[in-house]
Amino acid sequence: MADLLPESERDAALAPLLESGWTVADGRDALTRSYQFRNFIDAFGFMTRAAIWAEKWKHHPEWSNVYNRVDVTLTTHDAGGLTELDVKLAKKMNQLADD
Amino acid sequence: MADLLPESERDAALAPLLESGWTVADGRDALTRSYQFRNFIDAFGFMTRAAIWAEKWKHHPEWSNVYNRVDVTLTTHDAGGLTELDVKLAKKMNQLADD
Repeated sequence: MADLLPESERDAALAPLLESGWTVADGRDALTRSYQFRNFIDAFGFMTRAAIWAEKWKHHPEWSNVYNRVDVTLTTHDAGGLTELDVKLAKKMNQLADD
Repeated sequence: MADLLPESERDAALAPLLESGWTVADGRDALTRSYQFRNFIDAFGFMTRAAIWAEKWKHHPEWSNVYNRVDVTLTTHDAGGLTELDVKLAKKMNQLADD
């Protein structure tokens, strides 16, 4: 099981994500980001690639899709907040969305 | 563009869907249903198949996924409510979820 990000590492781990459009959710230790794509095919294509990484890493997003938009929330339920897994998946999603 | 379901056909069109677990949303002329699967692979597999039908029919769901659960809302934005397209996609999703 992943541990919560230690206080000493948390700011450094989250800084590049916060700069790239992720935010820490209100009232919940979770990262959220909304991605916009050109159309549904691109949005769902992003989700499909992210889904395979999520399953491979046994760490799954909460996410919703409306046409060209994908809203993502990441947290580690077992740990009750943000862990290294969330940082890893958030970075991967940014990379997949940029491809 | 699809037209709103005519009053004379609406009840008959919706009845089998309402029996199968779909409900008409509160405060919105939309159909909603929550599907549960064995795991994430099955849930996202369902979404992937439904996504291809949605794109083929140019009619896309609003949906969210958390691990093995998929929550779907269907409505026809252009028409401002339920049309034959929503009925068709709701039926298809039921079929895909049962496979």
